[in-house]
Amino acid sequence: MSDEREPIGFGVEVAAPIDEAIERTKAALQAEGFGVLTSIDVRQTMKDKLGETFEPYVILGACNPRLAWRALQAEHQIGLLLPCNLIVHQHGDRSLVSVADPVAMMSLLPSDPDVAAVAAEARERLQRVVAALGAES
Amino acid sequence: MSDEREPIGFGVEVAAPIDEAIERTKAALQAEGFGVLTSIDVRQTMKDKLGETFEPYVILGACNPRLAWRALQAEHQIGLLLPCNLIVHQHGDRSLVSVADPVAMMSLLPSDPDVAAVAAEARERLQRVVAALGAES
Repeated sequence: MSDEREPIGFGVEVAAPIDEAIERTKAALQAEGFGVLTSIDVRQTMKDKLGETFEPYVILGACNPRLAWRALQAEHQIGLLLPCNLIVHQHGDRSLVSVADPVAMMSLLPSDPDVAAVAAEARERLQRVVAALGAES
Repeated sequence: MSDEREPIGFGVEVAAPIDEAIERTKAALQAEGFGVLTSIDVRQTMKDKLGETFEPYVILGACNPRLAWRALQAEHQIGLLLPCNLIVHQHGDRSLVSVADPVAMMSLLPSDPDVAAVAAEARERLQRVVAALGAES
């Protein structure tokens, strides 16, 4: 089936197991002004709640407070799309870090130039995060 | 400007200040199998990080483990759109609870019948959460 939508995210492979990949990701996010506000250990949650076994897979919620502030001023409902999600999951001795593209996420809202400017800056910063992680590996 | 997209979410007004509205929301979510995995106090975060004053505004991340499990089996990248976000914010002595519509969120992914079925069930359950909150008020 053809699908003309933009990909929902972008990512990079990191030559490290998940715990180290998460630490590197947090450091790279911090360099771009993002703190990690939430962390969901999907493997642990599935084990605890359902008794099911899932691969090592963590969802991080990252927030750049200045960008979030600008976004909230422009669009009060933007909290429905915050924070910026990343997933980190392990394959063998490597991990994949994927980032939800803020431009794709914000496309769910009615178009607004201020929101679009924030989304574009967030995307650029997160692309630099991914590039920095790739350069380390 | 015309905009034919679906609204990003749906919501309800609750006749209570934010803390009580959050407690009622958590109870209504639990009745539909959703736990609250994350909570971001936007007002506190903006005060701490930027020294700015914002209204009482909290972002909750809710997850129904059975639905999340089915979604992860169907689409490995779905973690970029999890958990389901709700925002609760206070206006005077009332609060507004808004829910990100899972069907709208999942529309960002390539269409898949299993993902669509999970999104539809999640939407139905969250609509019952909102209806229950409205019936209390």
